[in-house]
Amino acid sequence: MHIVQPGMEIDVLKENNKIANENYRLLKSHKIKSVDFMGSIGAGKTALIIKLAEKLRAKGVRVCAIAGDVTGADDYGRFEKSGLEAVNCNTGHECHLDANLVKKSLAKVDLGRYDVVFIENVGNLVCPADFPLGTDYRVVVVSTTEGDDMVRKHHDIFLHSDIAILNKMDIADAVGVDPNVIMEDYKKLTGGLKTMYPCSARKDEGIDEILAALGF
Amino acid sequence: MHIVQPGMEIDVLKENNKIANENYRLLKSHKIKSVDFMGSIGAGKTALIIKLAEKLRAKGVRVCAIAGDVTGADDYGRFEKSGLEAVNCNTGHECHLDANLVKKSLAKVDLGRYDVVFIENVGNLVCPADFPLGTDYRVVVVSTTEGDDMVRKHHDIFLHSDIAILNKMDIADAVGVDPNVIMEDYKKLTGGLKTMYPCSARKDEGIDEILAALGF
Repeated sequence: MHIVQPGMEIDVLKENNKIANENYRLLKSHKIKSVDFMGSIGAGKTALIIKLAEKLRAKGVRVCAIAGDVTGADDYGRFEKSGLEAVNCNTGHECHLDANLVKKSLAKVDLGRYDVVFIENVGNLVCPADFPLGTDYRVVVVSTTEGDDMVRKHHDIFLHSDIAILNKMDIADAVGVDPNVIMEDYKKLTGGLKTMYPCSARKDEGIDEILAALGF
Repeated sequence: MHIVQPGMEIDVLKENNKIANENYRLLKSHKIKSVDFMGSIGAGKTALIIKLAEKLRAKGVRVCAIAGDVTGADDYGRFEKSGLEAVNCNTGHECHLDANLVKKSLAKVDLGRYDVVFIENVGNLVCPADFPLGTDYRVVVVSTTEGDDMVRKHHDIFLHSDIAILNKMDIADAVGVDPNVIMEDYKKLTGGLKTMYPCSARKDEGIDEILAALGF
């Protein structure tokens, strides 16, 4: 639900950021590294998280996930099926997670058992930008199937995230998209300071580079 | 921007619906048929609208488009390049069009010159659902690249739309998605009353069926 009412907007964002700070301190007190994965429907966030978690688990890193969705348990089910322990977090109607929903989900996790928490936000490239959850990293995932113009259309989420990932490199040709256009737009938007990480979660390409960017 | 505040929510929706009714009456007074195309980033809304408009123009139907985006003029540029006259409508920050933005865009159109107005909403499968714009039809466009679970995850927009379209049928195999799962989910959600229209805007497949569903 979306309301343009400047005064209230600030109150809501302030309250979100206050709880985000609490989440951050809670996670840090357990020495947990946390990542918020944002991106549109079909960007491949679930597949990417599963792949990253597999590689980390192989190194002995203990990972859990929070699966954010408006409704249903599809992503949660995919996490569990892959062997990744997860909590399902439905927003009910809202188009993004917020810090309070994450706080409630973290309360369901035995934090002493994990080194890493991956949070999959609701499939949406616009709305999650305004709501930090209290994670170490905010990651935006886009895919080649979304066309070559998504950076030009959606500045906010790219500017509000620490790392950008371009997924589904393996089908760029099939969908007729030039990944270089997207990566160049991102470079321009971030003043040449940041690089977008290309990958294919399905083909297991570019995953190690992403883990390195996340400090693993 | 998203605020959960039940009282205000109702006020904003009421105000939106009031202006949507004004838009509807304005369009009807000019005997214009109008369609709101909603769907995620990369669903192929722009390509589909261009293809529908081409076929209509070939029949002598006069079409114009409103290109809704958070920022930029990419879709507007694609419309104009295809020969489809259009108005660019940037929301600035908001993740969906609303009736008031459409009212302002319609004020820029010489309505006497057109039979049809196609409105492309912002790329987002969640938020536009709550904001009718005053069109004859609300259409939701999804694509096979979004995975087979989008109907299960996003009830609202499917229930709030008159027609659902499944685009990019030509690359369903390449992305490993079974379109039948999506179409069956939609049938279940709508109690077997409604059928999802499969198409490929790029390959020009299934377009005539969509035009027929829109009463052309």
